[in-house]
Amino acid sequence: MRIGIVGLGLIGGSLGLDLRSLGHYVIGVSQRASTCETAVDRGAADVASCEFTPLETAEVIFICTPLSQIAPTLDQLLPHLAPNAILTDVGSVKAPVIELIQPRWANFVGGHPMAGTAESGINAAIPHLFQHNPYVLTPTPQTPEPAIALIHQLATSLGAKLYTTSPEAHDRAVAWISHLPVMVSASLILACQGEPDPAILSLAQALASSGFRDTSRVGGGNPELGLLMAQFNQAALLEALQAYRHQLDILMDGIKQSDWQEVHQRLSTTQQARPAFVKEPW
Amino acid sequence: MRIGIVGLGLIGGSLGLDLRSLGHYVIGVSQRASTCETAVDRGAADVASCEFTPLETAEVIFICTPLSQIAPTLDQLLPHLAPNAILTDVGSVKAPVIELIQPRWANFVGGHPMAGTAESGINAAIPHLFQHNPYVLTPTPQTPEPAIALIHQLATSLGAKLYTTSPEAHDRAVAWISHLPVMVSASLILACQGEPDPAILSLAQALASSGFRDTSRVGGGNPELGLLMAQFNQAALLEALQAYRHQLDILMDGIKQSDWQEVHQRLSTTQQARPAFVKEPW
Repeated sequence: MRIGIVGLGLIGGSLGLDLRSLGHYVIGVSQRASTCETAVDRGAADVASCEFTPLETAEVIFICTPLSQIAPTLDQLLPHLAPNAILTDVGSVKAPVIELIQPRWANFVGGHPMAGTAESGINAAIPHLFQHNPYVLTPTPQTPEPAIALIHQLATSLGAKLYTTSPEAHDRAVAWISHLPVMVSASLILACQGEPDPAILSLAQALASSGFRDTSRVGGGNPELGLLMAQFNQAALLEALQAYRHQLDILMDGIKQSDWQEVHQRLSTTQQARPAFVKEPW
Repeated sequence: MRIGIVGLGLIGGSLGLDLRSLGHYVIGVSQRASTCETAVDRGAADVASCEFTPLETAEVIFICTPLSQIAPTLDQLLPHLAPNAILTDVGSVKAPVIELIQPRWANFVGGHPMAGTAESGINAAIPHLFQHNPYVLTPTPQTPEPAIALIHQLATSLGAKLYTTSPEAHDRAVAWISHLPVMVSASLILACQGEPDPAILSLAQALASSGFRDTSRVGGGNPELGLLMAQFNQAALLEALQAYRHQLDILMDGIKQSDWQEVHQRLSTTQQARPAFVKEPW
């Protein structure tokens, strides 16, 4: 197949590496000429350019830009699509992307490959990034069946574990397990950093170890990513935050009232509940 | 030196392994005969028994029981101490332990070696557990200088990084970086687990990956440990929780108001603040 990839970062580049090694012809598009060169050099695309014209021959196009770039990308991309071209994206929030693209291109399937590393950019692209990782498709009742089937097949060929759900269910699920943790974790850093006694702050910094490191990791990450989560998944994230705050309040209340039975019971619940979320990596 | 260790779990056992390899004679005490046997077999003690009598010849005694067992242990231990014996402990909260022991045994120095693994018990004991890790001493104005000097020297000989501070400063610092993260992380699990739609809950469980895994780790741990933190460090933990809740509220408010500049600024602050807490492991 002739497959277009718009946006040659970690996800787009890794997708290109895998799709090429599966025998597809990959046409890359990036804003930067140097990224295009690197993508071809690294084997992530057969050809790559800053122009959208070469995508006229593509049967499938993956939009792999950051969420905030999908709208402007679409304006440039649509005039160059073949009439039957199937469009998909890899954005981490689905409802707003579908709202944006579906009215303008019917042959579109929202997708979210849930894979990543701590790095970003074309130089971070690696083969088999998606293998054994979830890949969520979020078709709507309007999405054409052949388009769903084709993207499902391509994602399966990457070795990913496919899930199909509504955009709203996806966004709610990722609010819980991906976007809420960022805000919870960021607030932890902000609270600790707010210690007014510099001697205690510097002791806390010196004593912090694996518990703090793990709990603060996603909150101390790239602020642009956290911001995009908040902007694009605002409603679901706020609902998750409110539920979180309610749980925090109950726990605080138990501690304040010295209701140790209640505190113990809640901490036992978390110990029992966590394994269902945390599978061993195959 | 003749050194007593009361409580032969991960910390007591690892301490025994190191102290013996430094040439000290280690007298172990545990409630369980089988633990005593294992401790001697594994080289964590020269002798070990369920009786406190052998501690009459010990020059230094480490109390390595769980926090909740320090009070009953003390009643059994004190009648057997030599008049000049120096007492120390390894509890993770210091003010209540010092309140408990100092009035009954003047020659006492509170201590907190901040080391551990995911395991517990004598079979989890390992050599060099304390090496390169913080070891906090919390003397008070009443603590005899020679006792401080001796425990400082022993802790240094384990390869630990020594810190000396007041019990209150210690408890406040560990509330921030150790006890607050547990409650923050537990509340995350409770919130996610509270999703009312079973299909979305099971999707969230399927999609959860490293971000959720790390942020939820300490909240899904041993509930007894979390409970002890809450019980023994109640005041400092509640203060930390209130500060945390305040930070969470500000962040939630920014998201609710779509004040993206504010949200971005706060997430940038966390990215800048985290490295001071998270040093590379030497």
